[in-house]
Amino acid sequence: MTIKEPSKKIVIVGGVALGAGAAAKARRMDENAEIIMIERGPYVSFANCGLPYYLGDEITDRDALLLNTPESLKSRFNIDVRVLEEAVELDRAKKLLTVRKVDSGEQYQLPYDKLVLAMGAKPIIPPLPGIGLSGVFSLRTVPDVDQIKAWVSSQNAKRAVVIGAGFIGLETVENLASIGVEVTLVEKAPQVLPPFDPEMTALALRELDKMGAEVILGDGIASFEGVNRATTVTLESGRKLEADMFLLGIGVRPENGLAKQAGLELGTAGALQVNEYLQTSDPDIYSGGDMAEIIHLVDGQRRWIPLAGPANKQGRVIGVNVCGGQEKFLGAQGTSIVRVGKATLATTGFAEKTARALGLNFFTSYNTAGHHAGYYPGAKDMTIKLMVENPSGRLLGAEVAGREGVDKRVDVLATAIAAHMTVSDIAALDLAYAPPFSAAKDPVIMAAMAAENVQHGVIDVVHSIDDLPAEDVNVLDVRRDDEVIEGMLPGAINIPLDELRDRVGELDASKHWIVYCRSGQRSYFATQLLKRVGFPHVYNLSGGYIVQE
Amino acid sequence: MTIKEPSKKIVIVGGVALGAGAAAKARRMDENAEIIMIERGPYVSFANCGLPYYLGDEITDRDALLLNTPESLKSRFNIDVRVLEEAVELDRAKKLLTVRKVDSGEQYQLPYDKLVLAMGAKPIIPPLPGIGLSGVFSLRTVPDVDQIKAWVSSQNAKRAVVIGAGFIGLETVENLASIGVEVTLVEKAPQVLPPFDPEMTALALRELDKMGAEVILGDGIASFEGVNRATTVTLESGRKLEADMFLLGIGVRPENGLAKQAGLELGTAGALQVNEYLQTSDPDIYSGGDMAEIIHLVDGQRRWIPLAGPANKQGRVIGVNVCGGQEKFLGAQGTSIVRVGKATLATTGFAEKTARALGLNFFTSYNTAGHHAGYYPGAKDMTIKLMVENPSGRLLGAEVAGREGVDKRVDVLATAIAAHMTVSDIAALDLAYAPPFSAAKDPVIMAAMAAENVQHGVIDVVHSIDDLPAEDVNVLDVRRDDEVIEGMLPGAINIPLDELRDRVGELDASKHWIVYCRSGQRSYFATQLLKRVGFPHVYNLSGGYIVQE
Ligand SMILES: Cc1cc2nc3c(=O)[nH]c(=O)nc-3n(C[C@H](O)[C@H](O)[C@H](O)COP(=O)(O)OP(=O)(O)OC[C@H]3O[C@@H](n4cnc5c(N)ncnc54)[C@H](O)[C@@H]3O)c2cc1C
Ligand SMILES: Cc1cc2nc3c(=O)[nH]c(=O)nc-3n(C[C@H](O)[C@H](O)[C@H](O)COP(=O)(O)OP(=O)(O)OC[C@H]3O[C@@H](n4cnc5c(N)ncnc54)[C@H](O)[C@@H]3O)c2cc1C
Ligand SMILES: CC(C)(COP(=O)(O)OP(=O)(O)OC[C@H]1O[C@@H](n2cnc3c(N)ncnc32)[C@H](O)[C@@H]1OP(=O)(O)O)[C@@H](O)C(=O)NCCC(=O)NCCS
Ligand SMILES: CC(C)(COP(=O)(O)OP(=O)(O)OC[C@H]1O[C@@H](n2cnc3c(N)ncnc32)[C@H](O)[C@@H]1OP(=O)(O)O)[C@@H](O)C(=O)NCCC(=O)NCCS
Ligand SMILES: [Ca+2]
Ligand SMILES: [Ca+2]
Repeated sequence: MTIKEPSKKIVIVGGVALGAGAAAKARRMDENAEIIMIERGPYVSFANCGLPYYLGDEITDRDALLLNTPESLKSRFNIDVRVLEEAVELDRAKKLLTVRKVDSGEQYQLPYDKLVLAMGAKPIIPPLPGIGLSGVFSLRTVPDVDQIKAWVSSQNAKRAVVIGAGFIGLETVENLASIGVEVTLVEKAPQVLPPFDPEMTALALRELDKMGAEVILGDGIASFEGVNRATTVTLESGRKLEADMFLLGIGVRPENGLAKQAGLELGTAGALQVNEYLQTSDPDIYSGGDMAEIIHLVDGQRRWIPLAGPANKQGRVIGVNVCGGQEKFLGAQGTSIVRVGKATLATTGFAEKTARALGLNFFTSYNTAGHHAGYYPGAKDMTIKLMVENPSGRLLGAEVAGREGVDKRVDVLATAIAAHMTVSDIAALDLAYAPPFSAAKDPVIMAAMAAENVQHGVIDVVHSIDDLPAEDVNVLDVRRDDEVIEGMLPGAINIPLDELRDRVGELDASKHWIVYCRSGQRSYFATQLLKRVGFPHVYNLSGGYIVQE
Repeated sequence: MTIKEPSKKIVIVGGVALGAGAAAKARRMDENAEIIMIERGPYVSFANCGLPYYLGDEITDRDALLLNTPESLKSRFNIDVRVLEEAVELDRAKKLLTVRKVDSGEQYQLPYDKLVLAMGAKPIIPPLPGIGLSGVFSLRTVPDVDQIKAWVSSQNAKRAVVIGAGFIGLETVENLASIGVEVTLVEKAPQVLPPFDPEMTALALRELDKMGAEVILGDGIASFEGVNRATTVTLESGRKLEADMFLLGIGVRPENGLAKQAGLELGTAGALQVNEYLQTSDPDIYSGGDMAEIIHLVDGQRRWIPLAGPANKQGRVIGVNVCGGQEKFLGAQGTSIVRVGKATLATTGFAEKTARALGLNFFTSYNTAGHHAGYYPGAKDMTIKLMVENPSGRLLGAEVAGREGVDKRVDVLATAIAAHMTVSDIAALDLAYAPPFSAAKDPVIMAAMAAENVQHGVIDVVHSIDDLPAEDVNVLDVRRDDEVIEGMLPGAINIPLDELRDRVGELDASKHWIVYCRSGQRSYFATQLLKRVGFPHVYNLSGGYIVQE
């Protein structure tokens, strides 16, 4: 083996997705670089995303959470991993990092040629009265979950309040429920899963209910009370909830203290600004992952997208570039997914509310279909919502909620978004079909066809029967008799689709008609019939009765 | 309702995917057209794809196979459906179709403005001695499956020979096995599932074995013997197999008799030539589905792709165009999938053998990874093979074999192919990750990264240790000790990856080195190390030991 002087000194602060990924890739690029990883916690390269499942005993092997150890990173990649050491100061002019040993408080200075800030994010802990009491937790690291598990068993915890109904909050609820803890979920927003449009979260609410979790929406927390340990949380409304433990899952913030101190440029949300090579405003300092902003692929704007997939890809890009490469990281689109009981919810690109806030010109379209052919037993309904650019038809975003196969559809839609596909392109996709897996027209294709018809003006749609002024609007329900008895929209009259051709004379063609069925499909068929026989003003209720419930 | 003269007369021959789809869409386009559907069988709009599962009692509700009936097509779409009527002659000059009633033999003439040939395909029945004996079946229609099921129970069938190991053959084997019939599978090709490259079918063979099915490859059938009913099949090799029933699944041919008689232009494989509007050489006659050639999206050449997804999409396009529209059908890419026991195999685009036969400039790359994060229990290995164009990196085809999540990956890859993505584009995809669904680097992304490294010359690969002349080649196995005891490739020496950096001095840097591990990942890491310390000739064994087995 050729023994050489280290080609350069690469220092990485933070040893998880971004940091460990950059370190491993850098080693593959350069055998002679000195690669030092500073991590303030006791572990590196751990599976944050697995922590809720370890809490719920779904993952029982704690070691499985540690994808690498300092030893394995040493033997495999010759990385000098220094755990329980914290980067506390950065002198960019001298290219010197000050590192403090967590146990002893001792400090030393570490020179670098290239520095990678991979410090991630930290849970938001609002400065509320009592927040420091024991029994109030957040979940980010292995020690966090160790503490929570120890608390559950030492206190024989039976009741928990989870604060925040984002992905981690919901995973926490589910996993606490599965180990027999009764959970109340408190969320300040008027919905669970804020990244989703509210109507798409109905399935999650249903599953939370099945788990026995009480869900309190539109209420925030004001304070914790208790002697020595927290026993009550008081909400902004004044309501008090007693419990044995309290979990904060109200979001994370970029770990930007060191970057700020060193004068690196920050963007919105306090995340670091980086260019496409993932260089910060100091070209010898790279960053990414949960502490940096990246380009959102749908509109090219920089946003904070703190997720593991993008962090891992950015780590790989940084590993190349700190070794002299010129790899670009093009961006991400916020694709994310969560299991809630038997349901799965997933999203990619912009939600309706995001697209609306950005002032984009777009429409939405819903579809509900079985996750595989209906004639094959076990098909489960899945609702897909598409955000489609006007007039181009380009897909801007999608949300999918169902019980099976949701992950497949969101990944297909994510790929379509990355490829700038229109809904017509998606409707034409040649996806794999055999009865156990899909239908001859996959739900994604059905959703795209329905949206294509809106885009092409084949049909006008409304999203609520209140979308048109009430005076001249009639509502037609074309479901079968056995469906209608379960409930109808106010003021609707019912003519089952299969009778419509014969009974169309019963309807006043000069009126505006909103037509609906269960999913929007049969009512679409009805609208076509009505249009062709001389009804000038017909509208399909997109998504049908299902999404109105 | 405005009563009008029929705007035009649309006659459709064949009432399944293409025919029923075209009829339904045409009605949505034109309420006044007269739409007549001629179907020689007793059923229309049935789920051919469900027939094997109905045979195997996985689908128990026979009615579920009938997505529509003549009555429902009448009431919903005002289609004049004429079952048990066969189109027997076509006079294009007079625009007259001669129809024969199957029961009475009576004939009548049917004029048309637009004609849709949606006659599909028929099973190949080779003219072998004894093929007409009872007990020899093929499976295409509902009456076929009725007959087979009746035979199984009336004859108390215990042993079956299935001839042909394509998709339908394998589904038949599985479903017979699941109702307790012992099956021997005979295939003339040297592999099962001929659309796949042979090494990718190993998992299917394993599952067939688990079902207790004997598999005979490289042998065709010569004759059937028996008194009144077939009791033996004699193979080309002379081998004789006794059984209670024999199922032919050796493929299908376009149902092109009528088209030939009428002088319509045929392409290769006997399928009809159609343009992008799905018009045959006679512009008033449309065709598609299993009886026509379509454009293969990967190379733009016309091919016969007899599958339900494309047929359904073509039906929709024809429905528009027979009503005066100008919709284009752009093509398909042969995406298909089959479940075999606990395994799933899927493919999209070109297999290696196809790309090779076409003389394309491409390389292949393999990867094996868990279908979700390894730290989350229950991850199942999945092997992905990519066919990648040189030097562009564009994906030409993919094959996926595994137990879970195969359908997702093939659909993502199919979407990527449709979008002309390169492996770098795929490696950058933002796919949904939470532990139950995927890994931070999804198997598709891992596969694309590995392929990207080949494309960019980061690593040279071989596909067998025999790919290089033996004299100057050494083979290095970098697996752990506990893996190596299960077997090594001939002549290999073992240094576990994690010891390689320390022990590299044991290796002769001037030699050519092929490095392998289980999946190709650790050996890739090893190749990078060797290259960086001065080994000029190192090659990764793509896909590793798994695909060599
Ligand atoms: C419970 C949980 C579940 C999640 N589930 C998912 C999921 O299902 N899907 C998904 O995509 N994402 C999920 N995420 C998010 C995902 O884990 C992050 O996006 C990803 O880990 C970000 O990687 P990173 O390397 O940027 O930061 P981090 O993982 O936060 O790593 C940063 C590291 O830097 C260290 N550090 C910080 N400051 C210093 C300092 N000054 N000196 C030394 N070390 C320092 C920290 O101790 C930490 O170990 C989840 C996160 C959590 C907490
Ligand atoms: C057992 C089985 C399993 C399958 N599984 C799958 C699968 O999992 N995935 C997949 O993608 N594809 C599958 N297929 C293929 C799929 O069913 C076909 O691609 C699709 O049905 C083609 O539709 P089509 O309308 O072109 O033809 P067909 O479905 O063949 O319909 C043609 C119709 O025309 C009628 N006809 C023919 N000639 C005349 C005439 N002269 N007069 C009147 N009527 C006539 C026939 O009776 C027939 O009903 C399977 C097929 C079978 C048989
Ligand atoms: C694991 C970790 C250290 C990254 O290390 P890594 O060496 O890049 O390893 P990965 O497992 O990601 O493998 C990717 C590499 O293997 C290669 N590879 C994968 N399969 C391959 C195959 N069959 N043949 C050849 N190469 C293959 C890829 O091309 C890639 O190499 P490249 O980047 O040089 O192109 C880092 O991601 C980590 O610490 N992760 C855990 C923490 C985490 O992600 N937490 C948040 C989510 S829970
Ligand atoms: C069912 C069959 C008659 C086609 O009829 P169809 O009316 O086109 O019905 P589909 O169920 O395919 O629905 C597609 C239509 O519903 C629309 N649609 C679906 N969901 C919708 C929703 N939620 N809102 C609005 N429109 C919706 C689509 O846009 C499409 O209409 P379009 O073509 O006018 O755009 C035909 O495919 C058939 O006979 N299939 C069975 C046979 C078969 O396919 N065999 C082989 C495979 S087993
Ligand atoms: Ca409906
Ligand atoms: Ca391996």
